[in-house]
Amino acid sequence: MSFAFALQARDKRARAGLMQTAHGTVETPVFMPVGTAGTVKAMTADAVRRTGATIVLGNTYHLMLRPGAERVARLGGLHRMMDWPGPVLTDSGGYQVMSLSKLRRIEEDGVTFRSHIDGAAHRLTPERSIAIQRELDATISMVLDECTPFPATHEQVRASMELSLRWAARSKAAFAPRSGYALFGIVQGGVHPDLRAASAAGLAAIGFDGTAVGGLAVGEGQAAMFEVLDATEPALPADHPRYLMGVGTPDDMIGAVARGIDMFDCVIPTRAGRTARAYTRSGVLNLRNARFADDAAPLDPDCGCPGCTRHARAYLHHLFRASEMLGPMLLTWHNLTYYQDLMADLRAAIVAGRFDARAAAIRAAWEVGDTR
Amino acid sequence: MSFAFALQARDKRARAGLMQTAHGTVETPVFMPVGTAGTVKAMTADAVRRTGATIVLGNTYHLMLRPGAERVARLGGLHRMMDWPGPVLTDSGGYQVMSLSKLRRIEEDGVTFRSHIDGAAHRLTPERSIAIQRELDATISMVLDECTPFPATHEQVRASMELSLRWAARSKAAFAPRSGYALFGIVQGGVHPDLRAASAAGLAAIGFDGTAVGGLAVGEGQAAMFEVLDATEPALPADHPRYLMGVGTPDDMIGAVARGIDMFDCVIPTRAGRTARAYTRSGVLNLRNARFADDAAPLDPDCGCPGCTRHARAYLHHLFRASEMLGPMLLTWHNLTYYQDLMADLRAAIVAGRFDARAAAIRAAWEVGDTR
Repeated sequence: MSFAFALQARDKRARAGLMQTAHGTVETPVFMPVGTAGTVKAMTADAVRRTGATIVLGNTYHLMLRPGAERVARLGGLHRMMDWPGPVLTDSGGYQVMSLSKLRRIEEDGVTFRSHIDGAAHRLTPERSIAIQRELDATISMVLDECTPFPATHEQVRASMELSLRWAARSKAAFAPRSGYALFGIVQGGVHPDLRAASAAGLAAIGFDGTAVGGLAVGEGQAAMFEVLDATEPALPADHPRYLMGVGTPDDMIGAVARGIDMFDCVIPTRAGRTARAYTRSGVLNLRNARFADDAAPLDPDCGCPGCTRHARAYLHHLFRASEMLGPMLLTWHNLTYYQDLMADLRAAIVAGRFDARAAAIRAAWEVGDTR
Repeated sequence: MSFAFALQARDKRARAGLMQTAHGTVETPVFMPVGTAGTVKAMTADAVRRTGATIVLGNTYHLMLRPGAERVARLGGLHRMMDWPGPVLTDSGGYQVMSLSKLRRIEEDGVTFRSHIDGAAHRLTPERSIAIQRELDATISMVLDECTPFPATHEQVRASMELSLRWAARSKAAFAPRSGYALFGIVQGGVHPDLRAASAAGLAAIGFDGTAVGGLAVGEGQAAMFEVLDATEPALPADHPRYLMGVGTPDDMIGAVARGIDMFDCVIPTRAGRTARAYTRSGVLNLRNARFADDAAPLDPDCGCPGCTRHARAYLHHLFRASEMLGPMLLTWHNLTYYQDLMADLRAAIVAGRFDARAAAIRAAWEVGDTR
């Protein structure tokens, strides 16, 4: 089965699509749970499936350091290792090198860095990143890019974006096509519309299977992010899946879907789940709050996850107070379920041609909820 | 459905039985996973069921302190709160008061102690313990006893055992019978056969639904424990379920089943699972060991748990090295599955009249395994 993306419906700029891959079909807009080190934290693969997730993300930086890409390959690839036969997207490692590693040095050829785990020296080039992602058996690989620091001057952003474009061309050359597998480019250019447009044009000239928007959700704020999306969207190939990397909150995602984005990944639902923060249809709840101690109601009465259908808020509160692992387990499960339900909800609204109304209703429910 | 226990087979002293309760039927010998604070650590209730467990244990001491027995009652009892409709046995709180709390003072009436959580003063009497277990909606309640320190003089053990007998009588008087619910007595008497026999006789005179053997697995060693069981077993009512509290390793349990014990609980499989120790058909493996880093074999090829059927040892090793929660989750699941499989194996052997041969074969497999 070859890699393909087909739009099924549009509602203004919002899109409902179908992405076909070697490992299964994905309905978009889609949220990809983050399985950093070959596991979505606090979840079995079976539980991830039961949230409705159809594609997960792995982090090349983490996996190359531990357990090592060659080892993952010997274990049959990421799908087999983590019991996820469905599609897997891996990032290129570039972002984590910048955010996690020590003593990194960026040169034209690539980046040298020290592992945050044991200080060992490693090197990542566009070619090496693609080779690692091949070893991981990523369904969708990402080009190596430089995640431009924010803030930066226009000239700094331009130089960084142009380096990323040269790396994108080298990534493309290194990528050996396989049926049903894909390589995505990444638009950079900071908050500057002219640089974003130049980046998108450069990527289109190289030719990719999908286009990511990178370098956002790095501190610029939601308004600036939406402005960049507004400016960038017209330059993105309409027939490509579009992936907004590292985003975001439910509100961020609704705004990005409205601006033509199809794919998301973010640690927010999993990280929040481990720290007692629940995303629900009536807003965000902190389950450590004492007012839940005797609350016999379900966390979110419209949610089908085990935490909501089988337990009371008071029990979830108790689990976090008692530092029981089941608290993070159930709340991660819930948050991921909420994210999947939200994407399905938005998709249905796009297909029905009532996206704006539905988005407004979802946001209004967060406000009228007792715990926004 | 009234509480009942029926022996279905005997093989020498080993017994296969059926225990009928208000919340379901339990085949014995049985291992009860420990759900200390209303959760079997690192497991959803659904996962506990999938290990084959039919009855779980809750700790009165922990639950009375947090979330509080009245709160559990308001949430519909322990079964409903933790999504475990099956039988639940609760201990009396006495053991944990001795092992966990501070500034405890034992008097004829009961024990006063300070919570290990917040230092608050609490009081536990036989009547209060029974009332709490009723609030928790325990299927099987245990009498409050004094867990005699080990070592102790014969006279100290006698005094303690006699106090426990007086508390047992008060517990019985405080227990309001309900159909399908049960109250178990606890034999004390340290390592002294005469005191064990006196304790058993005293309990029989009071009259209980089952008999526990307490005060073992407190440092006396397996040989001494088996000696006490050998000496105590003849004094135990044959038509009662017999419960060896806080035991043990697979080897301990095989030896105890051989000596006529029907029920067990222990934190070993769950605690070991969180620290990378796996109980398998070929012995104990420490999955942190570097030699598992590239081991593509299943942890235990004859086990049906997700960790064994869907993952390689190398993946489990990676999860523990990377401090991922999924490591403890999968290994707890595995260890509990192994404990359940072992009990089912022993039960089948008793029914088939070949317990000794089967026990010897199980133990031999631990020895020939590569990792004892």
